[in-house]
Amino acid sequence: MSVENTEQSVGKVVPQMADFDTPLVLRSGRVLDSYRLMYETYGTLNDRRDNAILVCHALSGNHHAAGYHHEDDKNPGWWDGAIGPGKPIDTNHFFVIALNNLGGCDGSTGPASIDPATGKPFGPDFPVMDVSDWVQSQARLIDRLDIRCLAAVVGGSLGGMQALRWAIDFPDRLRHCVMIASAAKLTAQNIAFNEVARQSIMKDPQFCDGRYLDAGVYPKQGLSLARMLGHITYLSEDSMREKFGRDHKSGTLNFNYDVDFQIESYLRYQGEHFSHRFDANTYLLMTKALDYFDPAADFDDDLVACLAQATCGFLIVSFSTDWRFSPERSEELVNALMEAKKSVAYMEVDAPQGHDAFLFPIPDYFSLLSIYLKQALVAEAQT
Amino acid sequence: MSVENTEQSVGKVVPQMADFDTPLVLRSGRVLDSYRLMYETYGTLNDRRDNAILVCHALSGNHHAAGYHHEDDKNPGWWDGAIGPGKPIDTNHFFVIALNNLGGCDGSTGPASIDPATGKPFGPDFPVMDVSDWVQSQARLIDRLDIRCLAAVVGGSLGGMQALRWAIDFPDRLRHCVMIASAAKLTAQNIAFNEVARQSIMKDPQFCDGRYLDAGVYPKQGLSLARMLGHITYLSEDSMREKFGRDHKSGTLNFNYDVDFQIESYLRYQGEHFSHRFDANTYLLMTKALDYFDPAADFDDDLVACLAQATCGFLIVSFSTDWRFSPERSEELVNALMEAKKSVAYMEVDAPQGHDAFLFPIPDYFSLLSIYLKQALVAEAQT
Repeated sequence: MSVENTEQSVGKVVPQMADFDTPLVLRSGRVLDSYRLMYETYGTLNDRRDNAILVCHALSGNHHAAGYHHEDDKNPGWWDGAIGPGKPIDTNHFFVIALNNLGGCDGSTGPASIDPATGKPFGPDFPVMDVSDWVQSQARLIDRLDIRCLAAVVGGSLGGMQALRWAIDFPDRLRHCVMIASAAKLTAQNIAFNEVARQSIMKDPQFCDGRYLDAGVYPKQGLSLARMLGHITYLSEDSMREKFGRDHKSGTLNFNYDVDFQIESYLRYQGEHFSHRFDANTYLLMTKALDYFDPAADFDDDLVACLAQATCGFLIVSFSTDWRFSPERSEELVNALMEAKKSVAYMEVDAPQGHDAFLFPIPDYFSLLSIYLKQALVAEAQT
Repeated sequence: MSVENTEQSVGKVVPQMADFDTPLVLRSGRVLDSYRLMYETYGTLNDRRDNAILVCHALSGNHHAAGYHHEDDKNPGWWDGAIGPGKPIDTNHFFVIALNNLGGCDGSTGPASIDPATGKPFGPDFPVMDVSDWVQSQARLIDRLDIRCLAAVVGGSLGGMQALRWAIDFPDRLRHCVMIASAAKLTAQNIAFNEVARQSIMKDPQFCDGRYLDAGVYPKQGLSLARMLGHITYLSEDSMREKFGRDHKSGTLNFNYDVDFQIESYLRYQGEHFSHRFDANTYLLMTKALDYFDPAADFDDDLVACLAQATCGFLIVSFSTDWRFSPERSEELVNALMEAKKSVAYMEVDAPQGHDAFLFPIPDYFSLLSIYLKQALVAEAQT
């Protein structure tokens, strides 16, 4: 092996588009006649075409997972810390594919796209997506890239659910499933938070029953509220205390309903910023996909029987202070995988950041991810 | 002691009003020239006038804590399980006073009341209240009832904060402070949830900068969202799973944005119901009082020095699954009370209900409350 670039960026990347004309039959029974997927790739596909890793995004992510789009880009892709030469998902060894999911709002066909049947944005007519629909559409992208079997499917949160669905629906098309800060299904509390977020958006008068683009308005307030609420659940109580505590914005209490505390200011900023860049119908769609995810439901709620479909190896990672997808949820999955006699590695990473931890370069977590993927590569090269 | 009524209701009760004309100087520096407090009493004040217990309400409570308002009243007062003959706050022994706090919306002067200066509802001009303002106004009510020293001040959640404030601000006017599912101050996460609730209300176009009554409209959607969010934090994750799990509302998934799961239906109902009965400006005011509560702030953040002001005995109760005001928050308080050499009894009650547990007749909790208050009475009769 020659000298490698370590801890560097994949550099400038150009998003690519793949158009599909074969109708996609969705879990809802509805059919998407044609669609586009926006994606990026990093690293080089080897001659055996067996070193590809598919990275699946979470609620608000997209295809831009690593690198930069132009020279003076201030922010790299959303998982730039993990993807690159010498990084845990090492582009010196792997060919990495990241896409914007169907129903998204960053270039793939979604509610804000033009419906060819009407010439107007789909809006609320865009079908509700299930994680299995995404995996099906992703498999077609993998076909298009002429890849038979992925080295791994990797994802955090909702991305981890896609990885698990791959393992169940396409067992012979991946060798490893990496689920980070995820779960086999949402709890009632998770669904409850999603429902409040959806109601925030749908009750915004500017939502216009989802036809806000036609109406030339935008449910900014509702989307902002949804994001504020989301942020509370992404952070641990401890990290919120560390970051903001009860610090005042201006030194004293105002005795009015403006911002008194730093945490209020932070949330308002996060909500405001997000509401400028994200499509409200996509937000609804992503939260429903989360709520609906429950692969064991097709097996009489028997998770072990469900996981018996899989043939790949599993790496499951949870974070000690993640209360949105707590370590207990990961442990349920690990126990079921062991009962189903699957190969599974598990680590609960001690980290203060809460659910957001999956995006941080935490040494124990990144070492594990790096070692797991590298060993997988070595083991397979020897077979 | 003669035969007592046990486990019975206080029966039919009639709310009373007390009007005050002496200006009340608030912590904000503003002055309320006159105000009315709506209250109820249960049991009989003894000749020594020393058997009175003041019950303070939480965010959405009021003066109607026990009994019925008319014969075919479907629901008794909000803490009827705890207050009555033979019940933990035993009206065979104690004279119980419950009031609607200033700024409330159930008869006491608040944002929906008519401002004598303008002849219109106060609305957003009603001053932001601090817990110390409430305690001051409550002390005047106790004066009016010609009670020098309360046997106890008792409250859950925000009500517990009022009890603590009594112990600090009026040390010689109560013999016992009972704080249930409460804390010495909110965490950043608590404030964050309150801020999202406030933003839900204030961003509702029908909020009209708080002048919705003048405008003849009502921010129903915002208030409903705030309540939905509140309910998530009142229940433990486990109790939500027990009550709702992932049960579907109609047997199958809808693949649209209507209600799919029982938990969604429950939250929507709670939000809708609440938005018909509660004043939006009062909701804002109550959450700010929660956020601002931090008695140690006046003592350079030294909680021990702050608690040194108190002379009463303390009973602190927390619930194992309460994540809004977790047992850790109560333990911080208990440790500080011990360091301040105060008399303190503490119990973490094992209960699945989350924060809401303080409203439930949980045997261990009710026994403790009953024994603590009865022993206090016996000990004092012997002095």
